[in-house]
Amino acid sequence: MLEFNLVRKDRRTKARAGLIATDHGTIKTPVFMPVGTRGTVKAVEQRELLEMNAQIILGNTYHLYQRPGVETLRRFGGLHSFTAWPRPMLTDSGGYQIISLSELRKLSEDGVQFRSHIDGSYHFFTPENVMDIERAIGADIIMVLDECPPYPSEWDYVSKSVELTHNWAMRCRESFDRSAPLYNYRQFLFGIVQGGTYKDLREKSVNGLLGLEFDGYAIGGLAVGEPADDMYRMTDFVTDYLPETKPRYLMGVGTPENLLEAIERGVDMFDCVLPTRNGRNSQVFTHSGKLNVKNARFATDESPLDKDCDCYACKNFSRAYIRHLFSVGEILGLQLASLHNLRFFISLMERTRLAILDDRFPEFKSEILSKMKNDNKEES
Amino acid sequence: MLEFNLVRKDRRTKARAGLIATDHGTIKTPVFMPVGTRGTVKAVEQRELLEMNAQIILGNTYHLYQRPGVETLRRFGGLHSFTAWPRPMLTDSGGYQIISLSELRKLSEDGVQFRSHIDGSYHFFTPENVMDIERAIGADIIMVLDECPPYPSEWDYVSKSVELTHNWAMRCRESFDRSAPLYNYRQFLFGIVQGGTYKDLREKSVNGLLGLEFDGYAIGGLAVGEPADDMYRMTDFVTDYLPETKPRYLMGVGTPENLLEAIERGVDMFDCVLPTRNGRNSQVFTHSGKLNVKNARFATDESPLDKDCDCYACKNFSRAYIRHLFSVGEILGLQLASLHNLRFFISLMERTRLAILDDRFPEFKSEILSKMKNDNKEES
Repeated sequence: MLEFNLVRKDRRTKARAGLIATDHGTIKTPVFMPVGTRGTVKAVEQRELLEMNAQIILGNTYHLYQRPGVETLRRFGGLHSFTAWPRPMLTDSGGYQIISLSELRKLSEDGVQFRSHIDGSYHFFTPENVMDIERAIGADIIMVLDECPPYPSEWDYVSKSVELTHNWAMRCRESFDRSAPLYNYRQFLFGIVQGGTYKDLREKSVNGLLGLEFDGYAIGGLAVGEPADDMYRMTDFVTDYLPETKPRYLMGVGTPENLLEAIERGVDMFDCVLPTRNGRNSQVFTHSGKLNVKNARFATDESPLDKDCDCYACKNFSRAYIRHLFSVGEILGLQLASLHNLRFFISLMERTRLAILDDRFPEFKSEILSKMKNDNKEES
Repeated sequence: MLEFNLVRKDRRTKARAGLIATDHGTIKTPVFMPVGTRGTVKAVEQRELLEMNAQIILGNTYHLYQRPGVETLRRFGGLHSFTAWPRPMLTDSGGYQIISLSELRKLSEDGVQFRSHIDGSYHFFTPENVMDIERAIGADIIMVLDECPPYPSEWDYVSKSVELTHNWAMRCRESFDRSAPLYNYRQFLFGIVQGGTYKDLREKSVNGLLGLEFDGYAIGGLAVGEPADDMYRMTDFVTDYLPETKPRYLMGVGTPENLLEAIERGVDMFDCVLPTRNGRNSQVFTHSGKLNVKNARFATDESPLDKDCDCYACKNFSRAYIRHLFSVGEILGLQLASLHNLRFFISLMERTRLAILDDRFPEFKSEILSKMKNDNKEES
């Protein structure tokens, strides 16, 4: 069983500060997990992730299964060793990518058949072989195979999907329990609550999972296009059902605002491609809102991306220089913007945790959000 | 006058070990200078250049004049400050890029008119305004405006070109002497020997320059497509005319073999895009020859790019991992390969210097070259 130490519960909200113990180190929550889809957090070096205090990073089962492939990962002793990442890792199950990337997928009770988006080859993912693949990848925290319905979806469709996802969760649990880690450290299994924006289906999904005693619970199927209020409402609803003694992970979320709102509603863990993807497109997160550093108005701006940031980019370079790099198409521009954005998210989580521990989370949250919103308006 | 301390002359060859003193630090020669065309060494961070012991980097006048432009550079106190690079810098004059990149160039005695390859705008470079631009960029070592004839060129063409280049060198010298640095450190001016592969023209060019008393002398117009033997022959010929008390710079050269051959012929300084450009194309330099790390035979290779290299990539990652990064198109692949290749060139120069100081340069050179050649054969 994964050891989760609930260090502090906020008096006024559902916000929590905790500690998740893995064999690659203890994770302080709330935590933002940089996404390293194919064994690298895009344009950022592993030592830079350590430097910015990334506590845990993600890998993606669908992508890693295809390249470098399970055989290579096994031979190298897993993804930690292959990528030289010493801290905890988490892998999603690939379910989401099968839906969004692969061609000609065929969903059945047994599993999902799909064609690779790379070479068109046919593959079949079942709860059982996904567990095998995630064993081979060897992340500390691994996710069950689920189906993530698009938004919007009819109640009938989501209802069937919740049933399928539940059956798959059971089979994952069984398969996980029958198997052992391939490397000399423990792995932990998280269930995923689905149910779209329907409270009754969310309730059914979460209650079904609770009987399976997962090491942690993810909330899936959100941040797929629904209004933010629905995301918050569903999150708030689901966390009321989740045990206090287990970590809670809101998958694929989100903006700094999304994170703070979800933390207020009891979430501990987040992952999102936003910091790196936006960084590669010259979109930078700052304490006074987002900015597009490629904008001509930064051409002679001597200030750093964010004067309150302690990252390598902000400690050394001006907006004007980074703007120049983007405007001439130099790779260093996206390296610096990606690095900065990730540090911004991680630092935000560090300070959120301190605020929870100091019993000032609601004040911290409204202060941060009001600063960011002000400048967002100036920006547009 | 630039202070050049000739620390050691090889007994058996023309190889030299020296020290070039600039206000941003002393450069140990022989030296390889990474190319930072547009204010960044492609895909490599400034702190990584420091870490790999890059002593001096290049900037390109043609590119920097266009973007970010002279006004921005002036406002920021020069390129050192704009790019946060604390060590010495060198700028070429842009002559070479005008020929190779710009459209509709018109060469006249007065200067060269060209259209920007970016926006088609018209510009006119003269020896005088190139000195102004290089003052604004503010590199420690700046180059005169020259014309670099393509290879092959007729004697008549090269002869006229040498004359033009000489007149421009005189005007650069005068303009440089009449002007002062814009920032609070000294700049030094290098002349450029031209003359193609014609000994008589090389002799004429070098003798003309000697009268102008430059701080150092570059050999230009080589590595433009001529056979390596011609490059070596011309280099050997020119260095016999150059004063021992000044640094010698072979522009745009080259492979590890080119560097060692030129050092044997009395050259102290080199620049080349090879390490970074090849790195971005998965071509890696090693002590046992070049390899293309994207090759399928590295898919499960647990060894580092080069077992004798001390760079971040070699200390942490396998060929298999870097091969994976290239094969899925991840930026980290080119970051690591660029970083490694640069360190390989820099480390080669460091060890060459030690060999010169230890009176074992010829042995060192043949040992290195024979190792590299052996594996090059296996490779192909």
